[in-house]
This record gives sequence, C-alpha cells and structure tokens, in this order.
Amino acid sequence: MKNSLGRMLPETVAGFGAVKPFAGAFATTPSGVRKAPRQKTVLPKANKLVDNLEEVFRRIPVRDGMTLSFHHHFRNGDGVVNQVLAVAAKLGLRDLTIALSSVFPVHAPMVELMKSGVVTGLDTDYMSGPVAEAVSQGVLAKPVIFRTHGGRARAIECGDLAVDVAFIAAPAADDYGNINGVQGETACGSLGYAFPDAEYAEVVVAVTDNLQPYPLHPISISQERVDYVVVVDKIGDPKGIVSGTTQITKDPVGLKIAANAAKVIQAAGLIRDGFSFQTGAGGASLATAHFVRKMMKAANVTGSFALGGITGYLVSMLEEGLFRNLIDVQGFDLEAIRSIRDNPRHLEVGAGMYASPFNAGCAVNKLDVVILGATEIDTAFNVNVVTGSDGKIMGGSGGHSDAAAGASVTIVVANLLRGRLPIIVDNVLTVTTPGETVDVLVTERGIAVNPLRPELKEKLVTAGLPVRDIAELKALAEKMAGAPKAPPQGEKIVALVEYRDGTIIDVVRQYKACE
Amino acid sequence: MKNSLGRMLPETVAGFGAVKPFAGAFATTPSGVRKAPRQKTVLPKANKLVDNLEEVFRRIPVRDGMTLSFHHHFRNGDGVVNQVLAVAAKLGLRDLTIALSSVFPVHAPMVELMKSGVVTGLDTDYMSGPVAEAVSQGVLAKPVIFRTHGGRARAIECGDLAVDVAFIAAPAADDYGNINGVQGETACGSLGYAFPDAEYAEVVVAVTDNLQPYPLHPISISQERVDYVVVVDKIGDPKGIVSGTTQITKDPVGLKIAANAAKVIQAAGLIRDGFSFQTGAGGASLATAHFVRKMMKAANVTGSFALGGITGYLVSMLEEGLFRNLIDVQGFDLEAIRSIRDNPRHLEVGAGMYASPFNAGCAVNKLDVVILGATEIDTAFNVNVVTGSDGKIMGGSGGHSDAAAGASVTIVVANLLRGRLPIIVDNVLTVTTPGETVDVLVTERGIAVNPLRPELKEKLVTAGLPVRDIAELKALAEKMAGAPKAPPQGEKIVALVEYRDGTIIDVVRQYKACE
Repeated sequence: MKNSLGRMLPETVAGFGAVKPFAGAFATTPSGVRKAPRQKTVLPKANKLVDNLEEVFRRIPVRDGMTLSFHHHFRNGDGVVNQVLAVAAKLGLRDLTIALSSVFPVHAPMVELMKSGVVTGLDTDYMSGPVAEAVSQGVLAKPVIFRTHGGRARAIECGDLAVDVAFIAAPAADDYGNINGVQGETACGSLGYAFPDAEYAEVVVAVTDNLQPYPLHPISISQERVDYVVVVDKIGDPKGIVSGTTQITKDPVGLKIAANAAKVIQAAGLIRDGFSFQTGAGGASLATAHFVRKMMKAANVTGSFALGGITGYLVSMLEEGLFRNLIDVQGFDLEAIRSIRDNPRHLEVGAGMYASPFNAGCAVNKLDVVILGATEIDTAFNVNVVTGSDGKIMGGSGGHSDAAAGASVTIVVANLLRGRLPIIVDNVLTVTTPGETVDVLVTERGIAVNPLRPELKEKLVTAGLPVRDIAELKALAEKMAGAPKAPPQGEKIVALVEYRDGTIIDVVRQYKACE
Repeated sequence: MKNSLGRMLPETVAGFGAVKPFAGAFATTPSGVRKAPRQKTVLPKANKLVDNLEEVFRRIPVRDGMTLSFHHHFRNGDGVVNQVLAVAAKLGLRDLTIALSSVFPVHAPMVELMKSGVVTGLDTDYMSGPVAEAVSQGVLAKPVIFRTHGGRARAIECGDLAVDVAFIAAPAADDYGNINGVQGETACGSLGYAFPDAEYAEVVVAVTDNLQPYPLHPISISQERVDYVVVVDKIGDPKGIVSGTTQITKDPVGLKIAANAAKVIQAAGLIRDGFSFQTGAGGASLATAHFVRKMMKAANVTGSFALGGITGYLVSMLEEGLFRNLIDVQGFDLEAIRSIRDNPRHLEVGAGMYASPFNAGCAVNKLDVVILGATEIDTAFNVNVVTGSDGKIMGGSGGHSDAAAGASVTIVVANLLRGRLPIIVDNVLTVTTPGETVDVLVTERGIAVNPLRPELKEKLVTAGLPVRDIAELKALAEKMAGAPKAPPQGEKIVALVEYRDGTIIDVVRQYKACE
C-alpha cells in the first residue's frame, strides 16, 4: 500500500495493527473520543508515599506486557528511566513497551534489556545514541513507533498510546503527588511532555529527589492524577539538559544562512507587532533568532510569543520586551529554567497545548514563523530528520512536523552540503515532515520557495533575496559533491514514522552495511 | 427503598433513572471510567471568535434537550446565565437542563423559563431566591439534582452529568480561548468550579467582556478545550460576589460559639506547624478563624494551607505568614481576588482537586479542621443545609459534605435556637451531610461530640471544655422553645440530594403550606 507521498507501507504491522496511510497534512480528522482512564478513589489519611521503586512495582503491580511511560526533560541527564528499568529487570518482567518522549545516549542500558526481552517495544519522538543504533540494527522484533511531540500527546489523549504506568521525574513533589519542575537541585523547568502521561495513564508515579511539604507550589501536575510518590537519591543531572547545540553558530556559512532566513521573515512582512516565532536549539536556528532580534529592535516591534523548546536566547528576548510571552514545553538550558521559575510571562504548557492536532487548537497553530533543520530535503520539500545518510536512525521529528504544520511560514535552514553530501535529493530516505507544510529552504547558495506558495516567492523576489528553484540548488550541490546514493537497506521494518494525526508517513528499514 | 440512614427513596426517578442509595460516607467506590468527550481538530488560522451568543447557538448548534452548564463565581452578580438563557428562549429552544454550580436570586428570570418549558431540568449544588422558591413549589416536572461541589466535579468527570455546552464567564480571554478570572473590570478570582466543565463538556464557549491579545497570561482554562469565544458587554457585577456574610459576627453569642470552636481545635492538639483549615463565609465561621489566628500567633505556628471559598480574612492570615498557602476554588470577596492575582502562594484549583471523591486524592482529604454551619442537626449528627424550617429549599451542600468527609475534625457551629426553633432535632428534614462525617457540634450552651469519636471527646473534656451529650443540648433547647414540628410536605419529589459519591442521601418533597 502507498500513502499520498508514494511511500510503500505494509497494510498491517505485527504489534501495531492496521496502518492508516498518511493522506495529507490536514486530510485526516478525528472521529473518536478521548481516552477514558479508570475512576479512582483515595480516602482521607491515605498515604501515597512508597519506600522505593521496587515496592511501587509490587503495589501497582507492574506486569509483563505493560507500557511504561517517561518524559525526556532531562535529555541526556535523565536518571529515572534507567533506575526504573533496572527494577523491572530485577523483578524479572518481560515484554515491556517503553513510551519515552525522547531517547538519548544516557539510555544505553536499555539496549541490553531489549536484547534480553525485558523491553520489546519502544514508542518515542526522537532517538540518538546506542538505542538508536541498536534499533537500526534490528534489536527489536516489533517496529519502534516514532511520533511527533504533538502526535504523542494526541496518541495518549486519543488512547492510541495507552499508558499503563507513567513514571514522572519530579524535581519537586509533595507527599500527595503535586509536582513541579522548577524547584530543587535537579530543576529541569517545564514538565510539559509529561502532562498527557499524567492525565491519561492508568497509574501515575512521581519519582522525586526533593520532597516538599504539602501543598507544593507552584503545581504543574496535580495530586488528582498521581497515585504514588517515591523518593530516590537522584532523578537526573541538569547538566545533561544542555546540549552543545544551544549556542549561536560562529561558522560564517551558518551565519549567512541565518541572516538570509531572517530576511525571508522580514520580506514576508512578519516583523510587526504580534510576531510569533519558534526556533530550535541548533546553532543556525539560534543565529536566525539573533538576526530577527536585531530587526525587531530596529523596527521597534513587540512580538506576541516565542514557542517550543526554550533557550536562554529566547529568554533574553523576553526580558528585553521583544516578546510578551514565552510558551514553554521544554527548557533547553539553565536560563530557561530560571526564567520559567521566576517570570510569570514565561508559561509552562503541556505537549497537547503545544502541538496536538486533535484538540480545540494548539499553540503551533498561532505561529507566524518556525525555523527548522533537516538532514535531507527533497525537491517536493519533504524533510527527513529521522535517518542519516547511512540509513541509520539518528533523530526524530520531535516538534518538527508539528511546528511546520502550524506555522504560517516554515523555513528550513541548511547547508547545501551536509558533510560531503548534498542535502537536496529527489526523494528523502525517510519522510518526517511533508513538503506541503514546508515553505522555504534557505541555504548559503540561495533560497528555494515551495511552489505551493507563489505569493511568498513573489515577496522574496521583490525584496531582492536570492531566490532559486530547488532543482537548481540541487544541481548546484551535485556539481560540487556528486549525486548522493541512497544507502542500502534491509527488508525488516525497524520503525514506523507516524505523522502527528496518527497516519503513517513512512517506515524505516533495518540498517545494512555497504558492500 | 431505604438508604443506610433510613431515608425513603424511590427506586427510580423519571428523568434521572435508577437511584443508588447512600450506603455510608466511604462505602461506595468507583467502578467505571472517566467521561470521554469527542476528539476535535482546529486548523491553523481558524477563528474561534464569534460575533454574538445567538451566532454561537447556531454554530454549535444548541438543540432541544441539551444540558448547558455554568459556573457561579459571580454568585449574585452573575450576568452570563440570564443572557444565555434569554437567547435560548428567543430561539425557541425547549427542554434544556441547566447545570449551574449554584443558583442565586439574580437568576430569577429562570423561573419564567421553567414555567414556559424552555428549562425543564436543573442540576446545582446550592440555590436561594426565586428559583429555589419556585422549585419548592413544584415548578419542574423532573426533580432538581442537588450535588456537592466535589460531587459535581465527580459527576462531570465520571459522565453522570454529561454537559453538552459549557458557557464559561471569562473575566479575561484571548481570541483562542485561553481564560483567566483575575484580570479586567469583572475579575472574579478563581475559576475552579468551571474547570471540570471546560475539561469534559462536548462544546466549550468562553463568554468574555475583556478580550486580550494572544496569549493570555496567566492561563486558568486552556485553549485546548475552548471552541468558541464571544464578547459581550458585561459578564457580571463583581459587587455581587460579596455576600453579606463575609464579615466576622459581632453578636456576642456567635463570638462565644466561635471562641469555643477554636478551643476545640486547640484541645484536639491541632494548633501546630502544618495546621490546615477550612471555614466558610458565615459570620461565626469567620469569627472562629479570628480566634484560631490568635492561637496560632500565640503558639508561633505556621499552618500549611487554608482551603475553600477564600475570604479576605484568610488572605490576611496568608500575608501574616500564618499559612504557607491558600488553596482557592472560589473567591468570596475582592481581597481574595487581589490575592490570587498577585500572590503565587495563593493557588487556584479546580473543583475536582478541591473535593472530588473519585480521583487520586482531593484537597479536603488533607484538612485538619473544617468549620461548617447547619440549619438543622440531628442527634445522629446528620446535618441539613438544604431546607429551612418551613420545608422550602434555601441552600444546598456546596462544599459542606465534601469538607466534612475529608477533614480530620469537622466542627459544626450553630446557635441552639435558629429564629425561635431548636436547631437540634431527632431527624433532620433533609440530610445533606451524614453524621458519621461530623465530629463536633459547638453551641453557645455546650459542645457535643459524636459518639464515634470517643478519643476526641476525652481530649475536650480534659481541656475543661463544656462537653454535653447532644440529647442534653436538644432537651435544653426544647425547654426554651418547645419541640419543633416537622413542616407539612407534599408528595411530589422536587429534588434529589446526591451525596458526593453519586448515591442519593435524601429527597426534598414539594412545599405545602401549614393548614
């Protein structure tokens, strides 16, 4: 079966069921109802504090085949997933599915648990490091489900991702299960990705290293949904939150791309009061923010909000009054954590409010502009951020597809060559984000506008920007580096790439070394 | 059929269905799942602003027989219910059920709509004024459902009270449906009673007179659940929020009762760090807070939280450092509104977190003490706050039964005579709050302790408090005023009194004048 992008999909997948093919970014609409977890009751004087994780497992009880969920706000500093899975292994549990919003190198111990059958399913929005490597090599019998950040919230709220037990790393908690992410030595800022888990899991466990008197304040996740509170030595290392990519690039090529991306925004007429903006934590994305900031100051405009993973750079723009608000689903550095704790204009939101396509309206819908990266983009503007040039998994959508779908203008910034390989191809290996939601590609050698947006192209041409046809840019890159060859691939499907609406936009096949 | 308190109940009620008899305050546990409203989608650039209420009715569309819900934070200053129902009447709608968390004299126009068949059902936690009078007289064919504030949240979350359209009076809103109650000329403070409606109604309408730029901040109710935003001239009059009963009593008898209630708390050993407290807005309740405050200061203790409807008096205790936090589901005066807007220690919570018995733990469960009133109390400590001595409806539980069930020590304060009638009777006309959840009755002539709490009685006796048997106090009152006669009643059931767990604790029969 083919989806609307011509990608070959299996009709059903063992361990997943019937595949709904992607049919267009807004073609699939919801028809069902929200997940309905069991009602509960907790009597006065009942105690939710449990001595240790093992005891929590016994009380619930966690059984073979269950789905355990986790959030990734500690990124590569996460300390909860490994602790919980070590208990699962110790207790002899089998066949668990791990629904972890993103997987990092720190989660390497999961590979052994996959080999031994403790973990047989993985549901995530992004992965890098040893787990990604092992999945690419085919360690799991069942394909991994890749979702978007908004799609994960949708899948949990709509019951497609049914979570049995949510383990929530809680930088601060009280004994009745109120949680926030902003207090204590392991503060991580927003807990937004854990909101759907807390609301819809059948059982919710707060795992904290910072027990506070009742009532905790502020409250990000409420006692109404938390069944157990367990205190551990350490839930994570906040240093691991900060990625090396949260600094503005110093590379002159990257700066040129960023400057041009900012000019695109200006030419589109968006540097105006009420401007809203999302940018990732990549160096070129942040550099774009840098140029946008200069333009906003020069034009004396006040933006409405910046959205997404929040960096110190966006915090400084808030503090300068360039944005009225930050809308924060995840902090990318310690400045973001300080700001969300202290500044009432810095709003914590859940993943559903951030980006779920199936509620009464998410924040990405209100975006003027999003700046995104790409590992590959094709001449139909489809973007791959899941697999690398060797065909191995090295990322995932995260909020990529969500923000692209929501924003009025979606700009991909990328060097024409990635390593020594052209970034523009005829067909990306793995479609993450459909081309119909991508408006502009900015490279150091020119700017390509999606033919679906002729009015935007005209504005950029009028502004004197170096607009080229995407095929022309592709030819230019191939002249420098030759046409890239698609990597060899095995037959086995190791991952399904789900679009935010629950349809399958592509699959990832097992890694196969070049012969 | 009789329930566990011996109250005669019908097995089924037309328009309500099978009656589940009350079986004890904690005897009925949940067995089902939460309400699952329809999934939705809202595309980027979609507009939620609608010109007027009539247009909202057409877009939804509101149909005959639907349940429309409203919150009562404006109390007797509410301006939304009457506006919305006027539109319903104009459009010729019939057979609507109004789920309004409390009904006040300002809602008098509803009586005509009941007579004309526009409104045929009422679901509420409290009512006073012309609607209560008309219901007592039998204006509706179907009985009114009286719930508790926590029980209403439970009923909505569990789907027993299925709301088709929630109209939320929004003191501030943006064009995408984010709402708060703390900004603008009609700020009312906490919007807690509207939280379940917003979360579980099939359609949610924000009705505002203060449209703010996107994104609104703070956000109390999120855009994720709000379908339409409509701007009207005025949503209410904040002056109507303040009731005449939010001042400390000056009556020497009332002060004596209050002083003794405070002594009960002290004798119970609860004036200690971490003390938690709820008191209503009645004069004697507030006077109790006054004496408790003195004791807390003298003992140099810091309480954890005060809960409930929040008054300026509790705000001053927060500001003095006597409580670390206020947990606020409803503001009772302008000081409460100021405080919840400006003080991060003053927490806004929904009705479910406040008091629902069927979630993972509500705030009333963490109460040390609650001070409550009564229109009648019987020798088994059952309390009536629904009907007056003439048998007419003049109130309702509100949070009465919830706080009584949750608190470690529940104290009812009351004059031995109400008007000229003894307050203690053999059997209250209408049981609102079961005696097993009421621990102490404090009157000006003595203190009675529920025989279920011998250890508490011993503490009070040891402290030298004037402890009497409740039968003794009853006899004392009857000696002064004679034994009260139960008022005559009609046959027709005009209201079902639902306990917080969804069982029926009593019924109210039609008013019948004395012959």
